[in-house]
Amino acid sequence: MDIATRVYNHKWKIDPIVRSLIDTDFYKLLMCQSVFRNKPETIVTFSLINRSSSVPLAKLIDEGELREQLDHIRSLRLSRGESTWLRGNMFYGKRQMFRPDFMEWFEHLQLPPYHLERRGDQYELTFEGKWHEVMLWEIPALAVLMELRSRAVLNGMRRFELQILYARAMTRVWEKIEQLRKIEGLGIADFGTRRRHSFLWQDWCVQAMIEGLGANFSGTSNCLIAMRREVEAIGTNAHELPMVYSALADTDDALAQAPYDVLSDWHEEHDGNLRIILPDTYGTEGFLDRAPDWLAGWTGIRIDSGDPAKGAETAIKWWKARGEDPRDKRIIFSDGLDVEKIIELHTQFAGRTKVSFGWGTLLTNDFRGLVPNDALAPFSLVCKAISANGHPTVKLSDNPEKAMGPPEEIERYKRVFGVGAQESVEVIV
Amino acid sequence: MDIATRVYNHKWKIDPIVRSLIDTDFYKLLMCQSVFRNKPETIVTFSLINRSSSVPLAKLIDEGELREQLDHIRSLRLSRGESTWLRGNMFYGKRQMFRPDFMEWFEHLQLPPYHLERRGDQYELTFEGKWHEVMLWEIPALAVLMELRSRAVLNGMRRFELQILYARAMTRVWEKIEQLRKIEGLGIADFGTRRRHSFLWQDWCVQAMIEGLGANFSGTSNCLIAMRREVEAIGTNAHELPMVYSALADTDDALAQAPYDVLSDWHEEHDGNLRIILPDTYGTEGFLDRAPDWLAGWTGIRIDSGDPAKGAETAIKWWKARGEDPRDKRIIFSDGLDVEKIIELHTQFAGRTKVSFGWGTLLTNDFRGLVPNDALAPFSLVCKAISANGHPTVKLSDNPEKAMGPPEEIERYKRVFGVGAQESVEVIV
Repeated sequence: MDIATRVYNHKWKIDPIVRSLIDTDFYKLLMCQSVFRNKPETIVTFSLINRSSSVPLAKLIDEGELREQLDHIRSLRLSRGESTWLRGNMFYGKRQMFRPDFMEWFEHLQLPPYHLERRGDQYELTFEGKWHEVMLWEIPALAVLMELRSRAVLNGMRRFELQILYARAMTRVWEKIEQLRKIEGLGIADFGTRRRHSFLWQDWCVQAMIEGLGANFSGTSNCLIAMRREVEAIGTNAHELPMVYSALADTDDALAQAPYDVLSDWHEEHDGNLRIILPDTYGTEGFLDRAPDWLAGWTGIRIDSGDPAKGAETAIKWWKARGEDPRDKRIIFSDGLDVEKIIELHTQFAGRTKVSFGWGTLLTNDFRGLVPNDALAPFSLVCKAISANGHPTVKLSDNPEKAMGPPEEIERYKRVFGVGAQESVEVIV
Repeated sequence: MDIATRVYNHKWKIDPIVRSLIDTDFYKLLMCQSVFRNKPETIVTFSLINRSSSVPLAKLIDEGELREQLDHIRSLRLSRGESTWLRGNMFYGKRQMFRPDFMEWFEHLQLPPYHLERRGDQYELTFEGKWHEVMLWEIPALAVLMELRSRAVLNGMRRFELQILYARAMTRVWEKIEQLRKIEGLGIADFGTRRRHSFLWQDWCVQAMIEGLGANFSGTSNCLIAMRREVEAIGTNAHELPMVYSALADTDDALAQAPYDVLSDWHEEHDGNLRIILPDTYGTEGFLDRAPDWLAGWTGIRIDSGDPAKGAETAIKWWKARGEDPRDKRIIFSDGLDVEKIIELHTQFAGRTKVSFGWGTLLTNDFRGLVPNDALAPFSLVCKAISANGHPTVKLSDNPEKAMGPPEEIERYKRVFGVGAQESVEVIV
């Protein structure tokens, strides 16, 4: 390293974790643009929720350091090169995916203030403001907490211990890639930004996927890495859309309709591979049963909770019932994947439908068993919309362990969406 | 890396393997000084011998590249900093280990010409000239061939394959070090220069030993690495001294005396931990039986061939027979060691004598099983004195697989030194 680079690095008061507003998931930007157009006045609260209470974040992470990282994110602005890339790059085969009015706004965006308080061994971290501004906190907030936790553990380690730790982790990732290499016609993307071990590690994993899988690696959800490594930025939409639309519904009828309103808005804006249904927010079966026919014409479905094979069978059955050929459709698996599960699902569904995988935490954060007390094991941290215009949000999903919201609202949603007994699946990541 | 460094690196016509005249084993310099004083007019021939004929060096390594590397070594001169270190550093507790007349000569040394010819799938590489000049070719010549062979295999590999290869090799070395860490009172040095995978790799291994073993790592035989990493330079003397002294002997009586003449010259020059007997050149048992009593007063014995436990028992018995307490003596094991053997020998002999280990090839070149066809496995390459003043040299050692010299001379040496049947041990490295 040259002297200038060292001096430059020493100028940092902190070692920032998130250094760019596009160090975030691509679907966040797509959803942001949609909200910017369709719900620009909605006020939401997002909140950090550590589903792994055994990981005492407030004991591990210094509050001052956390504030510095969050403050640094608020100092970020979209850079000229990033803006040029968003405006000029082709996404999902389409140029000018991001409209000029949205880009104009994004170029001037500063993320809104955060609220941070220690509660016992956990932090309460919330963001309140316009939906399209607040929503952009989700990914960097998660990435900062995950990486500060990694740093807290790594801090006590010596130079060669660190080198061996990464040597082992690299070997593990590469051995997974070697397994995946054997799958003919695999399509897999990196979805691991939010719970990554660190930015540099995610970047390394993506490069390993590029070299190891070639064209079978379809891209990364991380915009900054997609730009730098010149691969596809991947992603469509997430639960926050139906959750907020539903919270805004005034009546039970409007509530029942809300998830379809989301996709109706999306239908107007996007086509092709961006028309991916995320059906599980309030139970997949009921959602598909009551879905309008135009939705069966969409390109695919993303399975993000519950037993994935069961979810895929449900989707295939639904398409058939609606006169669609499942072989023309795409199923994207994105929940808690690791290599064995990917191989199993691919074996079961390839040929019957088009299969893709969004591989997250166990790609970018599999340090299980590599340090004493498993102190680097991934854990289940989320950052979700908890209210919209003063109404609490609710998520049911196909796994009751992932349900969110006040109990009485959960009961109401279950009634409105006709959700009965659900099978519980342990949430690891 | 800064631009200047890149440009500087691009200036190299080749990527040199040996970049310093002190990138060699410390004992070479000690022996060189001894020869410079005691046998300055002796003309010797050194020759490269690949004991692993299954490794077709001339097929793997381009002759032009090999010549470039050897030519580069001939362009090297002792640098001012290197000279200062040799003159000023304390070695084995002694200042000014290297005499001014020797340093004066060394500062002006250029290595003598080499003779290189392809013979089938092997290279014939020989050096002829004054002993104290030619002998300094041994280590760099071996290191160049070993590393060119590594490069030939690595050339075909892609970036991430390389990264994983080194990740696995690092993990392996570290796991060995973690094993060694458990041994209380261990004393171990790096003896792996000559058959190292590469210079950078040896340097990494030494750093790992420093961090992992602390004071139990006694140092490295490599002078350049010892200087840069600020650890002890380790080594005493080798078979070439008795081999050449013996070849110079005119009569059988003089031959029988020659190995003791070597140690008599050494006795005059060195004391303490540098008084280490290497007894196996013409059979350990006979050598010790006939040794003069003053030799039993030396500090220790290095076991470099045959069954090491048996050799150590022989030494202990000999000391006892000569009225010496083996607990005051040191046994240095240096032949074909790996962790299991080190642990076994330490367990067997610690307490009964002082035990040290010179760990070579399986420290600095254990890439076994890490690439297809085991193409990076270490192999048995040596560079030895084959004649002195026109007389062939002979080595018997305690393992007939390591014997060298014309058959009729081997028979004569066996007769003169009273060597009977020997147990054959497979030579791996």
